[in-house]
Amino acid sequence: MNDALAKRLAAIVGDRHVSTDPDVLAGRCVDYTGRYRGHAAALVRPGSDDEVAAVLRACRDAGVCVTVQGGRTSLVAGTVPEHDDVLLSTERLCAVGEVDVVERRVRVGAGATLAAVQRAATEAGLVFGVDLAARDSATVGGMASTNAGGLRTVRYGNMGEQVLGLEVALPDGSVVRRHSEVRSDNTGYDLAALFVGAEGTLGVITALDLRLHPTPAHRITAIAGFDDLDALLAVGREFRDADGIAALELIDARASALTAEHVGVGPAVDGAWQLLIELAGDVDHTDPLAEALEHADLAGEPAVGVDGATQLRLWQVREAIADVLGVYGPPLKFDVSLPLSTIVEFASAATELVAEHAPEAIPVLFGHVGEGNLHLNLVRCRLDEDRERALYAAMMALIARCHGNVSSEHGVGTRKRDYLTMSRTDADVAAMRVVKTAFDPDGYLNPAVLFD
Amino acid sequence: MNDALAKRLAAIVGDRHVSTDPDVLAGRCVDYTGRYRGHAAALVRPGSDDEVAAVLRACRDAGVCVTVQGGRTSLVAGTVPEHDDVLLSTERLCAVGEVDVVERRVRVGAGATLAAVQRAATEAGLVFGVDLAARDSATVGGMASTNAGGLRTVRYGNMGEQVLGLEVALPDGSVVRRHSEVRSDNTGYDLAALFVGAEGTLGVITALDLRLHPTPAHRITAIAGFDDLDALLAVGREFRDADGIAALELIDARASALTAEHVGVGPAVDGAWQLLIELAGDVDHTDPLAEALEHADLAGEPAVGVDGATQLRLWQVREAIADVLGVYGPPLKFDVSLPLSTIVEFASAATELVAEHAPEAIPVLFGHVGEGNLHLNLVRCRLDEDRERALYAAMMALIARCHGNVSSEHGVGTRKRDYLTMSRTDADVAAMRVVKTAFDPDGYLNPAVLFD
Ligand SMILES: Cc1cc2nc3c(=O)[nH]c(=O)nc-3n(C[C@H](O)[C@H](O)[C@H](O)COP(=O)(O)OP(=O)(O)OC[C@H]3O[C@@H](n4cnc5c(N)ncnc54)[C@H](O)[C@@H]3O)c2cc1C
Ligand SMILES: Cc1cc2nc3c(=O)[nH]c(=O)nc-3n(C[C@H](O)[C@H](O)[C@H](O)COP(=O)(O)OP(=O)(O)OC[C@H]3O[C@@H](n4cnc5c(N)ncnc54)[C@H](O)[C@@H]3O)c2cc1C
Repeated sequence: MNDALAKRLAAIVGDRHVSTDPDVLAGRCVDYTGRYRGHAAALVRPGSDDEVAAVLRACRDAGVCVTVQGGRTSLVAGTVPEHDDVLLSTERLCAVGEVDVVERRVRVGAGATLAAVQRAATEAGLVFGVDLAARDSATVGGMASTNAGGLRTVRYGNMGEQVLGLEVALPDGSVVRRHSEVRSDNTGYDLAALFVGAEGTLGVITALDLRLHPTPAHRITAIAGFDDLDALLAVGREFRDADGIAALELIDARASALTAEHVGVGPAVDGAWQLLIELAGDVDHTDPLAEALEHADLAGEPAVGVDGATQLRLWQVREAIADVLGVYGPPLKFDVSLPLSTIVEFASAATELVAEHAPEAIPVLFGHVGEGNLHLNLVRCRLDEDRERALYAAMMALIARCHGNVSSEHGVGTRKRDYLTMSRTDADVAAMRVVKTAFDPDGYLNPAVLFD
Repeated sequence: MNDALAKRLAAIVGDRHVSTDPDVLAGRCVDYTGRYRGHAAALVRPGSDDEVAAVLRACRDAGVCVTVQGGRTSLVAGTVPEHDDVLLSTERLCAVGEVDVVERRVRVGAGATLAAVQRAATEAGLVFGVDLAARDSATVGGMASTNAGGLRTVRYGNMGEQVLGLEVALPDGSVVRRHSEVRSDNTGYDLAALFVGAEGTLGVITALDLRLHPTPAHRITAIAGFDDLDALLAVGREFRDADGIAALELIDARASALTAEHVGVGPAVDGAWQLLIELAGDVDHTDPLAEALEHADLAGEPAVGVDGATQLRLWQVREAIADVLGVYGPPLKFDVSLPLSTIVEFASAATELVAEHAPEAIPVLFGHVGEGNLHLNLVRCRLDEDRERALYAAMMALIARCHGNVSSEHGVGTRKRDYLTMSRTDADVAAMRVVKTAFDPDGYLNPAVLFD
C-alpha cells in the first residue's frame, strides 16, 4: 500500500486503528474453516459511520480494493481478500442501544455480535429472532449482509425479516440512513432489502434497527427418530407452517455418532434420521405435538422435553454438531436448499457422490427442515485442490438436478461465485450486475465476492 | 401517438388488443376514487411476458412513456398517466396455475385478481396471506408493485412476504425470470424485493410464485369497545406479536355511525373506539383472548364470535367501511403508519386540522393496529384544489412530527411524490434514483409515479 493512502487512513481512524503488521494480516486473511487464504495490504478499524464513509472514499480515490470483515464466520470464505485489499473491520461499531419495549426494537452497531444482541433482548424480556451456533463471533452486520438464517428461521424468518432500519455507507462515500420508526412503510424502494444479502458488494452496513419478539410463555421440545427419511419429511411438512413452530432441525445418525464419540453427547433416540421439533407460544402445544408424533412412523419412542433442563439437553444434541465437524481438520461444506420432494433423492445421490470422489470422508447431514435447507459436511475430507474442485462441481450439478439452490443461507462469498448461474438465469445475473455497477462503478468494494 | 408505433404495437399484441378510442381511454385515465384524471394515447393489452417486453421495447424506441395498469384500485392515483402515455394493462396475464400443496405455493399471472388467487387457495384447502377489500379488482401484480398490506398483515406480513418468485419485464425489454423452487435462497441480490414496492417504475411484473398457508383449525373473533384510544392501544400492543394473531383492526365510532346510517350495519359494541381481534391456529385461543379482555379497560361487554356466522357478522362491521366512504362523493384519503406511542397525539391533532381546514368533512379513522397503520378518510370533503393541497401538506407535516410515515401500505403513486422526502432522507432518495436510472435511464416507465 502506498504511503499517501496509509497516512490518509490513519488520519481518518487514528494510528492505533490501522495495521500493516504481516502477522495481524495473516490472521485476518484466512477463512473460518482454515481451508482458504488470501492476502491484504492493511487492516482498518473505523469507529463511526462517517469514518467508514471516509475510508471508502480514500480507498476508492487510491484505486485500492476493500474487503469488509465482520465476525469472519462466513462459511463461503466471504472475507478472504484476493487483491491486496484494505480490510475494513466493523469491530468497533459494536454499540447496542436501549431496547424499546413498546415498539419491540433496538438500534445496534453493525459490529455488535449476535450474542450481545441476544443478551440485550433477554434483559428486556424479549427475544431476537435469529439464532445460530456462531453467535459469539458473528456480527449483526455480517448476518444482515448474508441474510443469515439458522435455528429459528422457521418461526421468525431470516435476518432480513428482523431488519427495520439500516444505515449504509455507499461506495461513493455517502451514507444512507433509513431509520424508519414504524413497522409498515411503502414509501419507495425497499433499499434495505437490497443491502440485506448483498454480501457487502453494494455498501458497508454500519448500524441496524432490529425487531424483537415477545418471549413465549410455553415451550415444548422433542426429538423423534425415524428409520426412513421420507417419514421424517412427512412430519416436517406438517409442522413447517404450523402454529407455534419454533424449530425443526434434521440430524442424521452419522452426526450423532460423531458427537457421541468426541463430546459425549449421544443420540437422544434411535433411528437413522432424527427430527428436533420445538413449539412455543402463549398457549401450550404439548397435546398437538404428542398427537402428531403418535401418528408418525417413528423408529421408537420420541424424547420429549417439558422442562427447561431436559429441553437444553435435547438442544445439545443439535448444537454439539458445530463442535465436531472440524475434528479431522477443515470440513468441506455444502449449504443447499431443496424442495421437500427432492430431499430423499438428494440425500442418497450425494452420499454416492462422496463415496466415489472422497471415499475417506464422513458425510454428515443436518439442517433446517422448515426451509428445506440441508447442511452437508464432509468430515475428514482430504482432497487436493483439483479433486476438491471436481467434487464441488459435481455436487453443484446434483443440486441443480434436484431443483435446489446452491446457497441456502450462507451466501455465495468467494467459494460459490462460479456456480451462481446454476441458481440464477443469465438475465437475472445481468440485472444484478446493473445494480452492482450503479452503486460501485469501479468495482472496488468486496471485489472477490459474489461475481465471477 | 404516431402511426408507426400504433402499427408496431398492433403487430405485437394483435389489433383487438390495442385501443385509441377516447371513451375507453377516458375510463382508464381516472383514479379509483374519481378524484384525479390524466390523459393517454393508447391502451395495450399484451397476452404474455414476451409481448410485455416487446411493447416496452417499442415504446422506448419511439420515446413514448408507458403507465402500467393492473386492477386500478390504487388509492394514490398510481395508474393516472400524465404524459399521453401508452397504458399497458396486465388484464390478460390472468392465469392461475395449479396449487402445489406440498410446497404450499402457486404460480399466477400478474393480472390475476386477489379473489381468483384466494379461490384457488381455498379449493386446495389453503389460505393466501393477503386480504383487502378491493379483492375483486386488485391484481396480484399491482399488489406486489405496491407491497400491499391489509387485513392479514399482522399474521402473514405484506404482499412481499408472499412472493417466492417473480417474472419481470425490464425497461430495456429483457425479461428476468426468478422462479426459485425453494423457500430459502441466498444466492445474490434479492431482486424480487426490489421490484416489490417499486410501483412499476423499474419493470413490469408479469408472473409471480406465491406462498400459501395452511388453513387454521380454530378461529375466535371479537370486537371490544373502548372510551379511550390509549386503552385500545394497550390491548393492541399486547396482541400485535401474539401467538395466533390473525387480525387487529381499529374502527372509530364515526365510521360505525356511517355504516349504520347507510348500509344498516351497526356498531357491535359501545365505545368511541372499537378493536376487532381475531386469533386463529391449530390450537384454540378462546381462553387467552377472554382473559386479556377481562383485564382491559373496556367500554362494555365485548362481542365475541365463536361460530362462523357470528364471526362473519363481526367482520361486516369492519368491511362495511369500504362501502360508505364514497357516499358523499370522493373522499380524501390518508394512509399513515405511526409508532404506537404517537397514535393518540396524531388522532387528536388530525381531527383539529380537519376541523380547521375542512369543517364540513367527516373524519373517519380505521386501520391495521398491528402495523400502527391508520387510514384517515375525509368523507364529504369538498375542497377546491388549493385548499385540498394546503390540508394535504399540513397533514403530511403532522405525520412527520409524529415520527410517522407518509405512506404505510398504499405507496406513493402520483399523489405523494411531493412528500417523499418527509419519510426519506436526501441520500436515501438519491440512492433510489441511482437504482431507477440504472434500470430505466430514459425514465419512460411510470414517469409520473414515485419521483418528483
Ligand atoms: C459454527 C457456525 C455456525 C453457523 N450457522 C449458521 C446458520 O445456522 N445459519 C446461517 O445463515 N449461517 C450460519 N453460519 C455462517 C455465518 O455465521 C453467517 O454467515 C454470518 O451471518 C456471518 O456473520 P459475520 O459477522 O461473521 O460476517 P463475516 O463472515 O465477517 O462476513 C460475511 C460477509 O458479509 C460481509 N460483511 C460483513 N459485515 C458487513 C457489513 N457490516 N457490511 C457489509 N458487508 C459486511 C463480508 O464482506 C462477507 O462477504 C455459521 C457459521 C459458523 C462458523
Ligand atoms: C376498497 C379498497 C380497499 C383497499 N384496501 C387496501 C388495504 O387494506 N391494504 C393495501 O395495501 N391496499 C389497499 N387498497 C389499495 C389497492 O388495492 C392496492 O394498492 C393494490 O395493491 C393495487 O392493486 P391493483 O392491481 O389495483 O394495482 P393498480 O392500482 O392498477 O396499480 C398500482 C400501482 O402498481 C403499478 N402496477 C400495477 N400492476 C403492475 C405490474 N404488473 N407490474 C408493475 N407495476 C404494476 C401501477 O402502475 C401503479 O403504480 C385498497 C383499495 C381499495 C379500492
